[in-house]
Amino acid sequence: MLDFDTIAAISTPLGEGAIAIVRLSGTEAVSIANRLYDGRDLDVVDSHTMHYGRVIDPNTEEMIEEVMVSVMRAPKTFTREDVVEINCHGGLASVNRLLELTLELGARLAEPGEFTKRAFLNGRIDLSQAEAVMDLIRAKTDKAMNVAVKQLDGKLSKLIERLRQDLIETVAQVEVNIDYPEYDDVEDMTKELMLSRTKSVYQEIERLLEMAKQGKILREGISTAIIGRPNVGKSSLMNALVQENKAIVTEIPGTTRDVIEEYVNVRGVPLRLVDTAGIRDTEDIVEKIGVERSRQVLKEADLILLVLNHNERLTDQDRQLFDLVSDLGLIVLINKTDLDQQLDYDEVYQLSQGHPVITTSLIEEAGIDHLEEAIANTFFDGQIEADDLSYVSNVRHIQLLKQALGSLEDATSAIHDDMPMDLIQIDVTRTWELLGEIIGDTVEDSLIDQLFSQFCLGK
Amino acid sequence: MLDFDTIAAISTPLGEGAIAIVRLSGTEAVSIANRLYDGRDLDVVDSHTMHYGRVIDPNTEEMIEEVMVSVMRAPKTFTREDVVEINCHGGLASVNRLLELTLELGARLAEPGEFTKRAFLNGRIDLSQAEAVMDLIRAKTDKAMNVAVKQLDGKLSKLIERLRQDLIETVAQVEVNIDYPEYDDVEDMTKELMLSRTKSVYQEIERLLEMAKQGKILREGISTAIIGRPNVGKSSLMNALVQENKAIVTEIPGTTRDVIEEYVNVRGVPLRLVDTAGIRDTEDIVEKIGVERSRQVLKEADLILLVLNHNERLTDQDRQLFDLVSDLGLIVLINKTDLDQQLDYDEVYQLSQGHPVITTSLIEEAGIDHLEEAIANTFFDGQIEADDLSYVSNVRHIQLLKQALGSLEDATSAIHDDMPMDLIQIDVTRTWELLGEIIGDTVEDSLIDQLFSQFCLGK
Repeated sequence: MLDFDTIAAISTPLGEGAIAIVRLSGTEAVSIANRLYDGRDLDVVDSHTMHYGRVIDPNTEEMIEEVMVSVMRAPKTFTREDVVEINCHGGLASVNRLLELTLELGARLAEPGEFTKRAFLNGRIDLSQAEAVMDLIRAKTDKAMNVAVKQLDGKLSKLIERLRQDLIETVAQVEVNIDYPEYDDVEDMTKELMLSRTKSVYQEIERLLEMAKQGKILREGISTAIIGRPNVGKSSLMNALVQENKAIVTEIPGTTRDVIEEYVNVRGVPLRLVDTAGIRDTEDIVEKIGVERSRQVLKEADLILLVLNHNERLTDQDRQLFDLVSDLGLIVLINKTDLDQQLDYDEVYQLSQGHPVITTSLIEEAGIDHLEEAIANTFFDGQIEADDLSYVSNVRHIQLLKQALGSLEDATSAIHDDMPMDLIQIDVTRTWELLGEIIGDTVEDSLIDQLFSQFCLGK
Repeated sequence: MLDFDTIAAISTPLGEGAIAIVRLSGTEAVSIANRLYDGRDLDVVDSHTMHYGRVIDPNTEEMIEEVMVSVMRAPKTFTREDVVEINCHGGLASVNRLLELTLELGARLAEPGEFTKRAFLNGRIDLSQAEAVMDLIRAKTDKAMNVAVKQLDGKLSKLIERLRQDLIETVAQVEVNIDYPEYDDVEDMTKELMLSRTKSVYQEIERLLEMAKQGKILREGISTAIIGRPNVGKSSLMNALVQENKAIVTEIPGTTRDVIEEYVNVRGVPLRLVDTAGIRDTEDIVEKIGVERSRQVLKEADLILLVLNHNERLTDQDRQLFDLVSDLGLIVLINKTDLDQQLDYDEVYQLSQGHPVITTSLIEEAGIDHLEEAIANTFFDGQIEADDLSYVSNVRHIQLLKQALGSLEDATSAIHDDMPMDLIQIDVTRTWELLGEIIGDTVEDSLIDQLFSQFCLGK
C-alpha cells in the first residue's frame, strides 16, 4: 500500500437530513477521531465496529455533537487504508464544525473523488470500476444504475482483461513461431493466426460499441422535446406520458424537487422530458429565436414528438416545424382523432419521410400505447430487455474502444499488405495498451487526476 | 419496549453524494436486510458491527448495489429497537431501489421523524431532547448548534425536572402540614412556604424566558434588511459585513449553494442578511409596492439598517423610509463621512427617535466596528458570551413556560387573597403539568404526532 496523508470530507449530500457523515481515511484516521471523541478508546476497538459517543471540541471542551463512530481498519476498507466514519445528526452547522475539527487535528480536506482515487491507487478497484462508482451516483434511472453496478462489479473489467489476454497471447505465440521456425509455412500460419485472433477481438469491441449507444441512452435518458402549434395537445401528451408511466425516481415528500420528476419510464426506455416550461413555449419558438437557432435548440433533443391536429388542415407553421426536425429523431403524433378529420394525411406521411406517424385521441386516452411502442422500437429495436449484457456507457471508454478498433484495423491492413511481423505487432500491442487505459492499467497520472476531479466531494 | 412494526427510510439528504443510507428499525430490521444482502449472515453477526457485501434484488437476482451494512441490536440503538443501516454509493436511483426493496420485503415507509419518535416512545430521550434533534438538524449557526446540542444532552430536561420536583415537594409538604397541624400557625407557615417556593420557581422560569429571546435569535439568526436610497452604500455595507465576518457555515466547493452564504457572524450574533437581490431593490420598494405593503415587508425583519449619505441633504424619500421603520429594530448608518458634510445631523437624530446612529466611511473601511458593537448591544446587551446557560429556543417550550408563569401568578394571588389551600394546590399542580409537557411527561398523543411530523424524513 502506498503511504498517503490522512484526508477528511463530508460524505453525505449537504442539506437538512437525518444523518450526515464525516469520513476520514489514512494512517492518522483513528487517532484524529479518537482525539475529538468522548467514548471508548477507538485505538483499541475491533475493526468494523460502531461506537456511540460525543464529539468534544478539544479547544473549548464543549460538546459538539452526539455521534456514532465507525472504525474500519486497513486493508478491508473502501480505500484499503484505515477509515473512520463519524455519523452525526444531519445538521449543516454541526457537520461543518465536525469537519473543521478533523482538519484542525491534522487531517487534510479531501479533494473531490480522493477516497475513490485511493481505492484505485491502492489496487482495490480498477479505473473502470472507479468510474462506475461515479456513474452509479449520477444514475437517474434504474437502467443507468444497472449498467453502472455491473461495471462496478467488474464485469466490464473482466471482459477487457480477457480481450487483452487474447492479444498478448497472440503476440507471444507469434514470437514463438518466429523464433522456432520448424516448418516452411510458418510465416503464413503466423499471419493467419494473427488475422483470426484480431478479428475475434475486433468483433467483440464492435459489439461493445454497439451496446454503448444504448448504454449512453440508458445512462442519460432520451432527451425528448414535444413541439407543435398551440392547442394541438402538447400539454395533454406530457401529462399522459407522466401519468401512464411511473416516474423512475419516486418523489418523496419533504425533499427538494429536482429535475428527477421529468423522467418517465416508457417500456424500459428512460425519457427525459425537457423542461416543461420550455416545451410549452415551443409553439412560438421559431418566431422568437429564428429558424436557424431553433434548429440548434431542437438538435440537442434525442427525440422530437411533433404533434399535429387531426381536426385542422396543415398550416405553414406545421410545415416549418417538419422542416426543422426532418433529420432528427422524430415521431409524428396526429392528435384529436375524436374530432372530424380536416388533416391531409397524405401530406403528413410525405413530410414525415418515413418517421413513425401515430394517431391518438389524448382526451379519450386512445393511442398512447402505440406511441410508447414506437418510442421503444425507435431506440432499442425491442432489445432493451437483454440487460444481462455489460453495456459501456462511459464516453472515455467509448473513445478508447474506438481507438482500439482503429488500431486493430491498422494491424489487419498491415497483414494484408504483407508488412513485417514486428510492425504488425506494434499495432496489436497498441490495442492492448488502449484497452489497458480503460481499466487504468496503462494510464497517465494527469488523466487519473482529471478523472477523479469530476467526482463529488467526500467520495 | 413497545411493539412496533419495522420502518424504513432514506436517512441522508437526497442529492448526489458519496454515501446514502437506508435505515431500518424494528423487530424485522435484521431479517429484512438479510434477505436482500449477499454477504455474511446478518442474523448471527455481533451487534454494532459493519459488513461489506452486495444487495441483490430477490425478484430478479440482479445486483443492485455494493453496500456496507451496519447491524445494531436493541436496546443500545437510536430507537432502542433493532436498527440496520445500509450505506450505499450515494446515487438517487440505487438508494431509491434499495428503499423499495425493503418495503417489498415487509418494512413500512417511515413517517417523518418516526425514528426519533420511537426513541421518545421507547424512553431513550424525552420530548425536549427529541425536539433538540430537529433543532440541531436545522441549525444554521454555531450558536444555534450549541443551544440544540445542550438541550439534546439533557440540560434543559434536568432543569425542568428540578423545578417540577420543587413544586411537587411543596405540594407534598403542604399536605403534610395540613394533615398534621401540630401548631396553631400552621396555616401561615404553609402559605409562607408556598409563597417562597413558588417565587423561586417563578424566578427560574422568568430567567429561562429571558434567555429564550436570545435563544430564538441564536437559532434563527437576526433577519436583517439593508435599506436606503440609491448610491448611499447599501451594497458596500453588505460586502463589508460579509467580508469582515467569516461566514458561519463554510462554503464547500462542489456543493449546492444554499441560503447559508447569507449568514454572517457579527460578534457572536448571527445575522441573516435577507435575500441580496431583494435588498438591492429596496431603493424603490416604496414606489413599487406602496407604503403600507412596504411596512409589512420590513416588519418581517428583526433589524433594519437604514443607510444615509453624509454628503447629501435628507430627501423626502429618506424621511419616508424613517417613517416606515421608526417602530422597528433600527440602526441608522450615516455613510460617506470621507466626503463633505451636507446632511443635517440634528434632523437625523430627531428622526431616529433614540435608535443608534453610526457614522461610517465604508470606502475607507471606517466605522464598521461601531456598527458591529451597536448590533451586539441591541440584541444581547453584551451577554452573548455567557453560553454555558441552557437557552430555550423552542416556541412550544416558550409557550408552556409562559403558561406555567401565569399559573404560578394565579397561585400567588390566591395565596394573597387567602383562598383555601386546596384551590392553591390546583394552580401549583397545573404548573407542574405544564412543565411536564416540555419534556413530554404529561403530553397528548395528538401533540406528539404533530411535533414529530415536522421532522425530516428518515430521522
